[in-house]
Amino acid sequence: MRKVAVIGGGLSKFGEHWDKGLKELIAEAGVQAIQDAGVVGKDIQAVYGGTMSAGGFSKQEHIAALIADHMGLNPLPAVRVEAACASGGVALRQAYISVASGLHDVVIVGGVEKMTDVTIEEATTILGGASDYEWEVFHGATFPGIYAMMAKRHMYDFGTTEEQLAAAAVKNHENGSKNPYAQFKNKITIDDVMKSAPVALPLKLLDCSPITDGAAAVLLASEDFIKKNKCNPVWIAASAQASDTLSLHDRKSLTEINSTKVAARDAFTQARLTPKDINVAEVHDCFTIAEIMAIEDLGFFKKGEGGKATANGETTLNSKLPVNTSGGLKACGHPVGATGIKQVTEIMWQLRNQAGERQVKNANYGLAHNVGGSGGTCTVHIFSRDNK
Amino acid sequence: MRKVAVIGGGLSKFGEHWDKGLKELIAEAGVQAIQDAGVVGKDIQAVYGGTMSAGGFSKQEHIAALIADHMGLNPLPAVRVEAACASGGVALRQAYISVASGLHDVVIVGGVEKMTDVTIEEATTILGGASDYEWEVFHGATFPGIYAMMAKRHMYDFGTTEEQLAAAAVKNHENGSKNPYAQFKNKITIDDVMKSAPVALPLKLLDCSPITDGAAAVLLASEDFIKKNKCNPVWIAASAQASDTLSLHDRKSLTEINSTKVAARDAFTQARLTPKDINVAEVHDCFTIAEIMAIEDLGFFKKGEGGKATANGETTLNSKLPVNTSGGLKACGHPVGATGIKQVTEIMWQLRNQAGERQVKNANYGLAHNVGGSGGTCTVHIFSRDNK
Repeated sequence: MRKVAVIGGGLSKFGEHWDKGLKELIAEAGVQAIQDAGVVGKDIQAVYGGTMSAGGFSKQEHIAALIADHMGLNPLPAVRVEAACASGGVALRQAYISVASGLHDVVIVGGVEKMTDVTIEEATTILGGASDYEWEVFHGATFPGIYAMMAKRHMYDFGTTEEQLAAAAVKNHENGSKNPYAQFKNKITIDDVMKSAPVALPLKLLDCSPITDGAAAVLLASEDFIKKNKCNPVWIAASAQASDTLSLHDRKSLTEINSTKVAARDAFTQARLTPKDINVAEVHDCFTIAEIMAIEDLGFFKKGEGGKATANGETTLNSKLPVNTSGGLKACGHPVGATGIKQVTEIMWQLRNQAGERQVKNANYGLAHNVGGSGGTCTVHIFSRDNK
Repeated sequence: MRKVAVIGGGLSKFGEHWDKGLKELIAEAGVQAIQDAGVVGKDIQAVYGGTMSAGGFSKQEHIAALIADHMGLNPLPAVRVEAACASGGVALRQAYISVASGLHDVVIVGGVEKMTDVTIEEATTILGGASDYEWEVFHGATFPGIYAMMAKRHMYDFGTTEEQLAAAAVKNHENGSKNPYAQFKNKITIDDVMKSAPVALPLKLLDCSPITDGAAAVLLASEDFIKKNKCNPVWIAASAQASDTLSLHDRKSLTEINSTKVAARDAFTQARLTPKDINVAEVHDCFTIAEIMAIEDLGFFKKGEGGKATANGETTLNSKLPVNTSGGLKACGHPVGATGIKQVTEIMWQLRNQAGERQVKNANYGLAHNVGGSGGTCTVHIFSRDNK
């Protein structure tokens, strides 16, 4: 398989966009990504798109062809990929395979979700499609409830506290305050989180990522194309994906996500790196407990020590391993299909030294971790500044 | 890229399955495909799944991970692909690329749709997601209406008659009567079609494919795997895909589907074959006019002559080019996400000489043509008995 790199990226502003639909959000991110890559339309050979439920939120399926249509890219092959909140990560991986295979030289891969055109009750039902609907949501479970069960067990097994969970949200809002694309730019305190409205205890409102409209796009290119053209590449050192049961009740453990462990193991093997080599990571913090489990399951901290490490500031912007410099899902926002691609734009900016106030010093290796549902799908991608 | 072959396939019975959900349909097809291929679970390295709107029909997204979960295939990477009614064809192509790239040696690719748990009105809205919803269905268009406009123009430009359209349905019911998996096994006459209830004139009830529950699955393997194991392969000689505008009003022509023309051109080039070489074809007859346009756009007949050729019996089981030996979408049924994979099982059975009463003599090359919406997406796959 050939070497592949990210050569450009773009984001729409994340937030509540009453005046914009799916197509406008896609175009905002896509045009920016194409300009950043310095390519023209005829260089692009395929379109990949990730969205969880454009059908549920906007009655629109067939979304990749719609992107190609709206961006004037017909008759390119256009492929929509869906894996709940990991739709972006899985779309990236399919686009990566198509370039690594030798089939394409340049592809665009986008992610989008337009979530604010439905009521909160409708959104909760639609997002429930990420679970095993017949076994979980049909019986009254919601995603805050599902992650709350994991949080309860983590607290029971390892002594993790609500304040430690809150520290992840406080850090991510601090980072989000420095991100011009973020939905929330307000800084918050542990006390704010502790006093916020209960959603599914121990998770409170400020432990939860929001409902967001947004889109993200990146362009991937082969080494051959990059050699012949002026590019600013960030190399994909590893692309890994794994699945797990959709239902929590079928899992061996409530305090780890096995798909993350398997994908991380595969990714580090592929990249010939270890967790210690990573300088900056975007992880899937749909809830604060999800970030704590992620930094453990990815191998950055021992199982059970993620909460303490977070509270100790070991993942802040100035630490050895800054986590969610974009603000994460919590503060940057979580348009579910876009999230996996937004993570890649952040890592790209960090490794290119273009992250502004959020810039991490000497970032050579970055990691993006995207989860679908409560862990039914996970992708881990590792990026390298150098073509090693 | 490496050579890839289909090494096994399976179908659920197509029809109205009040007693079966998504998971049961998938398992029925998947287990049959795995047994047919003669592989075991540990040989399989990835799961691909096509479904148009499990979210709309069953509130269930995240469907590839659900398939992996239900079939005991965790933690394999599981990828759901969606391209409206071409979801199966696009999923097949992504699975093909993943094996051709060298990443995987054996993958399973399934398609499924469980359509009968909603009302007809709900189904019409959900299927409308295949159009450009804001520009077409929102304003009252339905898919029968969209294809009726194409039929009207085809009749106006080329003198195609309603009886010629009806001939496609009569032939497909004749073929379906010989297919144990088909939803409809009744033979019909031109008169039956002409007298059936108007849906969107000139299309009548018997010009339209039905609402169907069903699943299909095939296994793909690399040449390396096939050399080392006992297999009965049918080789993928070409895999092509193209897009077009979703809205009819943006097209240059109402009487051709450009994505079919582009995908066919690319596929024949890749396979180094011409339309004359094809011995059996499954084409996307969501409506009778769609079959007429398909056999023209694929290059089997000149533009405007598809209706006459069909009425002349030039695509029946005993003709030079049998089309839709499975019964097509019309008689075998059209569980939208499964259709593109069902077409492949039929071509596989034909090229392996396992098609029973429907067997075409001396079938060496077969073609499968899968369309999303009114042509926003098209895939064309060419299969070869020999590894040429």
